[in-house]
Amino acid sequence: MTNPRSDRVTAVRALQKRSVRERTGRFCVEGPQGVREAVRWAPERVRDVYVTAEAADRYADDVVGPALAADLFVHEVSPEVLAAMADAEAPQGVLAVVHAAAPSLADVLAGRPRLLVLLSSVRDPGNAGTVVRGADAAGADAVLVTDGSVDVHAPKVVRSTAGSLFHLPVVTGLDLGQTLEDLAGAGVATYAADGTGRTSLTAARLGVPHCWVMGNEAWGLPADVRARCDDVVAVPIHGRAESLNLAMAATVCLYASAGVLTAGPPAG
Amino acid sequence: MTNPRSDRVTAVRALQKRSVRERTGRFCVEGPQGVREAVRWAPERVRDVYVTAEAADRYADDVVGPALAADLFVHEVSPEVLAAMADAEAPQGVLAVVHAAAPSLADVLAGRPRLLVLLSSVRDPGNAGTVVRGADAAGADAVLVTDGSVDVHAPKVVRSTAGSLFHLPVVTGLDLGQTLEDLAGAGVATYAADGTGRTSLTAARLGVPHCWVMGNEAWGLPADVRARCDDVVAVPIHGRAESLNLAMAATVCLYASAGVLTAGPPAG
Repeated sequence: MTNPRSDRVTAVRALQKRSVRERTGRFCVEGPQGVREAVRWAPERVRDVYVTAEAADRYADDVVGPALAADLFVHEVSPEVLAAMADAEAPQGVLAVVHAAAPSLADVLAGRPRLLVLLSSVRDPGNAGTVVRGADAAGADAVLVTDGSVDVHAPKVVRSTAGSLFHLPVVTGLDLGQTLEDLAGAGVATYAADGTGRTSLTAARLGVPHCWVMGNEAWGLPADVRARCDDVVAVPIHGRAESLNLAMAATVCLYASAGVLTAGPPAG
Repeated sequence: MTNPRSDRVTAVRALQKRSVRERTGRFCVEGPQGVREAVRWAPERVRDVYVTAEAADRYADDVVGPALAADLFVHEVSPEVLAAMADAEAPQGVLAVVHAAAPSLADVLAGRPRLLVLLSSVRDPGNAGTVVRGADAAGADAVLVTDGSVDVHAPKVVRSTAGSLFHLPVVTGLDLGQTLEDLAGAGVATYAADGTGRTSLTAARLGVPHCWVMGNEAWGLPADVRARCDDVVAVPIHGRAESLNLAMAATVCLYASAGVLTAGPPAG
């Protein structure tokens, strides 16, 4: 494909719009890392892979080989076509159209999760994506996202997950109140991560199955939500900073849960 | 001031360029949080504060009052003037021109630091700013930045520090090799934070004065730099993620150092 104005290119580019993603149930993954992880962990959801000739060569082992081995459609396109399809300024010559997964909270809870994180009204794409990546790295069982949050299939979110979107279930469109009830019903403790918390992260009960509840970047969690959680936990601030940003706070909490922060005194 | 094309506006806007910042020794702080922290912690460095009428009202207690109490120049400007000065799309009606501090590594080492972080060839403004904020929150004594890194006075870096730029010394323009030598000479252990490390963060010697060494976002730390550090430490990855991003990895390491790690087993 060499015509950046073809119908196919227009259709892929349209996936940058949330309404089109929701109607079609598809989204774009840009860049070799994300596409590689999609091909590796969710090949049944990959509809088409687009690569430039140069990228096909460079990522032969990482992307193109595994995609062909999985019987996926791999299309060579001109750099102009790829640029017209992509949101990123430099998608590194690789893009895939993928069907969105729709795991349910019930599925996640049926797996008896030990560690979850819930994003409530999180609006910044980079924050949301970074939390998904951090949750993956910390070994969380799933990420839960309320309906007032950023669309996790938006290009910037997908990019900042660095492929983690394909590593663990991300449940979207959740109602916050119902989710807190469902978690309680499943025996999962809910900890609001909030600077107002009177429990320090070092004293939180991390030995039981639990879910970190993260609020909006600017206004945090409303008081009634904090009150409905089993505890309100603050990451200790040692210097003069007012707070950590959302993604950092989530990562520190998740790593505390993962045991790094509970491993006892250091060797030194 | 109401003329967005005045010489004063042009001069402030020019501070978005690194060369102008370096020549004048000044930079811009945008938004009420950053300006408030500059006024509070470094009033002697604040040259001018610019506010719109609406922001002057809204941030009377936070920004304008303290600025006037510190005998600073506070100028009311039109929203058009502020927008013309600022890099951010929405600087919330507040901007200050500030003299850059130039703390030296020798000054920092003379204070017998317990916890430092060194950014080597870190290029992303958001990452650099977030590390400064995380270092502040974790109680680090200073942030060190090599000369191949992003300019810490660039607008996006300043914004993502959320005021922490005025809370702890940020030493810039350092030569990496010389800095590693100076740290060794001062008895500060150097730990390369790198996924290749054979020491897990949970086993690192965090009870001695130490400096985390963070490499470039894409290529990490060169082998010869890792070899010159006292240890190479990896943040454990529990899920399928390849790595954490730079700012998250730095924050987890810094919080481990800050004693979250040494707080003993959790109550749960």
